[in-house]
Amino acid sequence: MEGWSRKVYLALPVPSEEDHRPLQERLLAALEDSGPFRLERAAYIRLTPASLQNAQEICEAGSWRVTAVLCFDGYGWELLRLEPGNTAGKHYGLCVDLGSTTIVMELADLNTGEILAQESIFNPQINWGEDILSRIFYTKDRPEHRKRLQKATAEGLQSLMETLKEKTEIDTFSCPVLIVAGNTAMIHFLLGLDAFGVFQTPYAVQTLAPEPCKGTELGLSFDGFVYCCPGMANYLGGDIISGMLATGLADQEEICVFLDVGTNGELVVGNRDFLLAGAGAAGPALEGGVVHTGMRAKKGAVDQVTVENGKLKAHVIGGGEAKGICGSGIVDLIAELFLNGFLDLRGQFQEEVKGVVRLPGREEDETENAVEYAPGLYFYQSDITEFLKTKAAAMTMVEYMMNLIGLTMEDVGRFYVAGAFGTHIDKEAAVTIGLYPDIDREKLLSPGNASLRGAEKLLLDRRLMDKAKDIIGRMQYVQFGAVEDFLHLMVAATAIPHTDLNQFPSVVKKLEERRKKS
Amino acid sequence: MEGWSRKVYLALPVPSEEDHRPLQERLLAALEDSGPFRLERAAYIRLTPASLQNAQEICEAGSWRVTAVLCFDGYGWELLRLEPGNTAGKHYGLCVDLGSTTIVMELADLNTGEILAQESIFNPQINWGEDILSRIFYTKDRPEHRKRLQKATAEGLQSLMETLKEKTEIDTFSCPVLIVAGNTAMIHFLLGLDAFGVFQTPYAVQTLAPEPCKGTELGLSFDGFVYCCPGMANYLGGDIISGMLATGLADQEEICVFLDVGTNGELVVGNRDFLLAGAGAAGPALEGGVVHTGMRAKKGAVDQVTVENGKLKAHVIGGGEAKGICGSGIVDLIAELFLNGFLDLRGQFQEEVKGVVRLPGREEDETENAVEYAPGLYFYQSDITEFLKTKAAAMTMVEYMMNLIGLTMEDVGRFYVAGAFGTHIDKEAAVTIGLYPDIDREKLLSPGNASLRGAEKLLLDRRLMDKAKDIIGRMQYVQFGAVEDFLHLMVAATAIPHTDLNQFPSVVKKLEERRKKS
Repeated sequence: MEGWSRKVYLALPVPSEEDHRPLQERLLAALEDSGPFRLERAAYIRLTPASLQNAQEICEAGSWRVTAVLCFDGYGWELLRLEPGNTAGKHYGLCVDLGSTTIVMELADLNTGEILAQESIFNPQINWGEDILSRIFYTKDRPEHRKRLQKATAEGLQSLMETLKEKTEIDTFSCPVLIVAGNTAMIHFLLGLDAFGVFQTPYAVQTLAPEPCKGTELGLSFDGFVYCCPGMANYLGGDIISGMLATGLADQEEICVFLDVGTNGELVVGNRDFLLAGAGAAGPALEGGVVHTGMRAKKGAVDQVTVENGKLKAHVIGGGEAKGICGSGIVDLIAELFLNGFLDLRGQFQEEVKGVVRLPGREEDETENAVEYAPGLYFYQSDITEFLKTKAAAMTMVEYMMNLIGLTMEDVGRFYVAGAFGTHIDKEAAVTIGLYPDIDREKLLSPGNASLRGAEKLLLDRRLMDKAKDIIGRMQYVQFGAVEDFLHLMVAATAIPHTDLNQFPSVVKKLEERRKKS
Repeated sequence: MEGWSRKVYLALPVPSEEDHRPLQERLLAALEDSGPFRLERAAYIRLTPASLQNAQEICEAGSWRVTAVLCFDGYGWELLRLEPGNTAGKHYGLCVDLGSTTIVMELADLNTGEILAQESIFNPQINWGEDILSRIFYTKDRPEHRKRLQKATAEGLQSLMETLKEKTEIDTFSCPVLIVAGNTAMIHFLLGLDAFGVFQTPYAVQTLAPEPCKGTELGLSFDGFVYCCPGMANYLGGDIISGMLATGLADQEEICVFLDVGTNGELVVGNRDFLLAGAGAAGPALEGGVVHTGMRAKKGAVDQVTVENGKLKAHVIGGGEAKGICGSGIVDLIAELFLNGFLDLRGQFQEEVKGVVRLPGREEDETENAVEYAPGLYFYQSDITEFLKTKAAAMTMVEYMMNLIGLTMEDVGRFYVAGAFGTHIDKEAAVTIGLYPDIDREKLLSPGNASLRGAEKLLLDRRLMDKAKDIIGRMQYVQFGAVEDFLHLMVAATAIPHTDLNQFPSVVKKLEERRKKS
């Protein structure tokens, strides 16, 4: 493995009448002769004036036995600082999944590869808009707003570093490396770049592969280097490429589908021979965003639903009173409502079924069918419709891409659903409502926070940056919006599980079993 | 000529559906295809996140016609910023002679090579000691004092940039380049490095060839790069190497002597075939530093002295009342006193000569011979003795080095005396007292502020950095302190002009002429 940083222990020759080379030369010669550098032809080892400012004291304090901390700057190596004595055993690095909602940071031992701690916070950018688009508009033509968002992002990272430091008693601020995986807008906000191109045609952004920079340049109390995982396009950012590193999708023989549903929906289909990628608006509803009583998966959220003797039973996170329903709860609920006849194939409530009630709707003069999934909490027809539209959008992206290359779900060897959503969802329920394809359940995989997993890998092995760039070079980007038959496919996918029931034999079987029972 | 910076005008393709590359890629491709970069294989062109922060606005403001400002960072090129439209015609750079007493900065037009303006100030470090040694001791083991001196030095540069900006209405702070020539201690102070090694054996300093750094890293409001002229040894710094670039000494066929008398005395003897260098304490007395009424060459200083009819006549800078005597005045005075019989060969006042008076000396119980060189201003025997010791030190360095390689003054083709001292001194008087050798007067040259002249050259042609490193590699450093017969030689050189009168035929001739007259 090739790290981004190196800690090199040096026993320097003590200055004498015979050897009075300047410290810079003395250090450089010792470094060039040291293990990791002797074996390679580094373009350069740069000993900046800043790195020499306390060097003499440190050499004297360590009796000329010091540890040099170096970072790869993209082309060669830069000395960050010296430390007295041998500190090579203490070599730590940071990686972060810079999500639009949540920022998750991890501290890793770079000698062992072990993840020592993890912390997360809400992205402070939320103060300027829940969704990315609001934030982009906030910064449009306002460099000072861009600076504000940049600062808030840096402060988020800074506070995570502080918490990790308190928790582990490891000085995170002296880590030489921070790897960032995030979508294209997040990377633009972090670096203080104009993000409007992420949203506006022709989608020419500022950068998809930022050069490494010093943490201090971003306003962090961190003199190490910040490396961003490169992205592929405006809507297919470094978080997805990081997910490719996490799953190893681009090296696999089997055909894989990678679906990340977060604020947006991103999709990659491919293997070691080909890679197709695309993105679309397929996110928030799946996470409970558009639903009347939708909420994030935290205490008080209904995350599982079953029907027993015609009655809905809800499981509440943390026990106690239910306050709303999260993504996995919604999937469960719709699946159960469908299997137990509350809903037909089109996702319409069956008024004759006991438990379906008519309530005032969103508009004053409207009424809507609904069910009470927990005391005082109702799931409406309009919630169902919204959710099915979104699941149809996500599934249609997959279907469309498979059609494009003449494949069917039967050809898929691995179907990854990344993100918290994929982790908590019940596979059976997801297949039942047609959110997951009806394939061997072992092929349905939840890599969790794939962006963070990829960032971990990248943190430990610098060569994965070339891998990432290679993946990007191989990827074909599919613009779904531009596709004519996309809408037709989507309408078909709005049904539960799908208009084409042949694609869902296990669901058909379940329905038949239920029918037999009743 | 190869500059340190480049301003490259680019007509960028406007982003479109067909070409929606990120701005970073768009810029890089255009740069790689532009004149100066197309012709070479630059190691890299680095487009940092910082350089892209306002790039979109600037591209739009300039209708995608922009000028890229790039700097050589020692290995490759870094984009500093974009400017809207074509600003390549406005390309300016700065160079500075960072002296321990005076800092002189110049602004140059990098397109024409013309020096547009010059400004100088006293070095703010003077607040922490008149001489370098006091400043070194002030910073010893006190990193916070080192920081203070660093800051003061940067503030000095900053104020010069401000004055130059006001004077020329050119934004000096947007210059991409600042070249610094200074002695080893000055460079250490500028970069915030521990300078104690300059003074203490074994003279292992922090650096003699600092890596380029950003002005902002030094606390300047200047995002361009700062390049320091490299030095050869603790007492033979970048100011002398810069002097080599200024005079072209290392390329000449004739044997040259280069003597710089400032706070210290530095010497180079050589030509294109060999280079010997050394340094010694030969400075302050020559500039009037140790003399009772010595002062710098400014208003009120006696700078020329003649004897008419046995009486001393003094010329005062700026007219008016004399307040003291500067270096060139002292040389004139001693030469005239000698030629007119006030002083013997050993530099002793002749008490029988009219005008020599006996006055209370420095110690309470002492008296001293002296002359009144201007109303109320006396030049003492002890002043003469001090001055002759110093001139002997300077001349002995030259003599010793010539002996070392078996040469005499007759072999010297060019004898450079750099610095303000060399510029204002009367050549004849200097030969008379044995400060200059008695050679063809046309061979006695005053390159003025050679350090600044070399910095100007370096500013205009980056390849001279290699030249400087080549010169340093070829130089042999002679430690005068370590030399046994140095003291013997020095005693002989304390006489006026020298114990060996054969070396000064023109002075012997003058003495004979005077004797005939009287």
